[in-house]
Amino acid sequence: MTDETPSRRTVRVELGPRSYDILIGSGLLAEAGREIAALLPKARLLIVADERVDDLHGAALRASLDRAGIGHATMRLPSGEPTKSFPHFEAVVDRILEERLERGDAVLAFGGGVIGDLAGFAAGVARRGMRFVQVPTSLLAQVDSSVGGKTGINSPRGKNLVGVFHQPALVLADTDVLETLSAREFAAGYAEVVKYGLIDRPDFFHWLEAKRGAIFAGGPERAEAIAASCQAKAEVVAGDEREDGNRALLNLGHTFGHALESVARYDAERLVHGEAVSIGMALAHRYSVRQGLCPGQDAERAVAHLRAAGLPTRIQEIPGSGFTLDALMSKIAQDKKVVRGALTFILTRGIGQSFVANNVDPAEITRFLEAELAA
Amino acid sequence: MTDETPSRRTVRVELGPRSYDILIGSGLLAEAGREIAALLPKARLLIVADERVDDLHGAALRASLDRAGIGHATMRLPSGEPTKSFPHFEAVVDRILEERLERGDAVLAFGGGVIGDLAGFAAGVARRGMRFVQVPTSLLAQVDSSVGGKTGINSPRGKNLVGVFHQPALVLADTDVLETLSAREFAAGYAEVVKYGLIDRPDFFHWLEAKRGAIFAGGPERAEAIAASCQAKAEVVAGDEREDGNRALLNLGHTFGHALESVARYDAERLVHGEAVSIGMALAHRYSVRQGLCPGQDAERAVAHLRAAGLPTRIQEIPGSGFTLDALMSKIAQDKKVVRGALTFILTRGIGQSFVANNVDPAEITRFLEAELAA
Repeated sequence: MTDETPSRRTVRVELGPRSYDILIGSGLLAEAGREIAALLPKARLLIVADERVDDLHGAALRASLDRAGIGHATMRLPSGEPTKSFPHFEAVVDRILEERLERGDAVLAFGGGVIGDLAGFAAGVARRGMRFVQVPTSLLAQVDSSVGGKTGINSPRGKNLVGVFHQPALVLADTDVLETLSAREFAAGYAEVVKYGLIDRPDFFHWLEAKRGAIFAGGPERAEAIAASCQAKAEVVAGDEREDGNRALLNLGHTFGHALESVARYDAERLVHGEAVSIGMALAHRYSVRQGLCPGQDAERAVAHLRAAGLPTRIQEIPGSGFTLDALMSKIAQDKKVVRGALTFILTRGIGQSFVANNVDPAEITRFLEAELAA
Repeated sequence: MTDETPSRRTVRVELGPRSYDILIGSGLLAEAGREIAALLPKARLLIVADERVDDLHGAALRASLDRAGIGHATMRLPSGEPTKSFPHFEAVVDRILEERLERGDAVLAFGGGVIGDLAGFAAGVARRGMRFVQVPTSLLAQVDSSVGGKTGINSPRGKNLVGVFHQPALVLADTDVLETLSAREFAAGYAEVVKYGLIDRPDFFHWLEAKRGAIFAGGPERAEAIAASCQAKAEVVAGDEREDGNRALLNLGHTFGHALESVARYDAERLVHGEAVSIGMALAHRYSVRQGLCPGQDAERAVAHLRAAGLPTRIQEIPGSGFTLDALMSKIAQDKKVVRGALTFILTRGIGQSFVANNVDPAEITRFLEAELAA
């Protein structure tokens, strides 16, 4: 549920004893201390911060905590995907223990998805599970990583292959901090917003088609789009916390997308996650058309909206080389969601009509990608 | 519940969708393949093995898996507490991914508590949670680590400070392998058996007083004592999976015990875990007497039984130096169960009448330990 205020919304993620609120809106950084003190009285915090985000917004966060009388220490980490690795994970866990945080204290993730995933994983294992507050500062993190409790790091063998499910106690998504994102970062986050429409909310997709300009310009529609995205993800997660069933729908575009990111060696100059998901969703739609599952015009409409948002929709748009059929198929076979050799993809019957396909034939995917790469 | 067969018992740990069976008895190693195939058809296994245990019993385990057509690989690790560390944890996670184990496959822990805790933690985080089978080979692991899903590693800052709750899918406790334990290892495991009586089962404690000889000699009473211990722990865990309440009772003797182990630098030549728990339980009983909570004769009876089993009950029995008041109090203050500076201890009102005391005054503990060290 979302409340009525145009610029401040609350989405409740219903997970029984692990339920929590996501607050979305303007000025939340300045109110972080008050909100955290209300929920976790007397908690001390370890702020795990992206150093770039900390330079821009750390002072405002700490001033708010100080006003609320909340003790805190800050651990700054480099921006970028390589931070989601074993050495940084061990360092964060060690710092939590060094600060002698107790079970009633909390770890606060201050940054985008990388920091949220890393700090959440560390909070999930230090003392076998500590409280965790997320202050996501990228659009991607606000609409995706902040909902559902997936945490983790990358392995040399693949992305997000190591982690736990650990739900936050509170998420504070301040829409003002999005003003400091680059246009490219904002668009990449928007790919995940579009995803919720394409999964199972055709009305939301149509609304996005109408409101895209306002959302990018920063009007009240922006908070509305973020809240609707969190709400959409929260409903899926509430029905399937551990990803045994329909939660897999959230992976629309992700099996292809992860393979693309992996082949691009997670080089953010070439490809960031949201861009990979955009191409992945376009591929999922075109593959669905090829299989006779989805009308061609629906796929075209989905792709057109992504393109209008400045997002790539074809493999060839990724700069640099390496995107051979063999490279892509090898990465797809290593996907976390592979069960007994059969491939699982999220396919679609049209705008907002996605479904989990558990027995996708690798040979069909191979032929499809061959055609895509030759086009 | 335990079934009727004298030498083969099943304890069901009731945890809703995470429920599992513990099979206890003679000859289970030879039946491991059949039991695992029945539960996890077509699963491939990574055996994470204590190299000493693997030398003694690995061939029997693998022959059983081969007979059942179960694919397997083995990763051998050094015996001893230092294996429960970040580098080995990372290595096991990496090996799981290298073997391309999928979600339907499983990690099998083959060894004592160290291997179970380490492999369980790795299984709990690889692909955000893989199936996990335990084949505990020490008495301590059979009656303690195999029930309840606590997994983890040590940190330089303290024991078991990093880990997750991750329940096994199956536990196979073969009582035959206990024949290869040293007398000292067997006695150390027996301390945890006695613990279940002292917590809340006075009848079980009286039965142990009568049957100790038979249990040590390896009669059917041994499987019965193990099953009763697993049952006792399973009932506590079922009521409090995440240790928010009464599960803390299982820590009887452990706050003192962990401090002793830490001061002894986890040097197994000086002190093993079960011995530390034995001394810890004796201290908890004597402290309870000193506080006027427990009749002196009950504490004497508890201590006498531990001594009769060949277990230490005083700090002075630990070889080597370092057991100063300051060293012990510093370790007690870093315990995982500390909440806002107040100490939590499990105290007792008599045999089988333990309770959680959340507001123990550190000054009282200091005076008590001073007296113990001077005695």
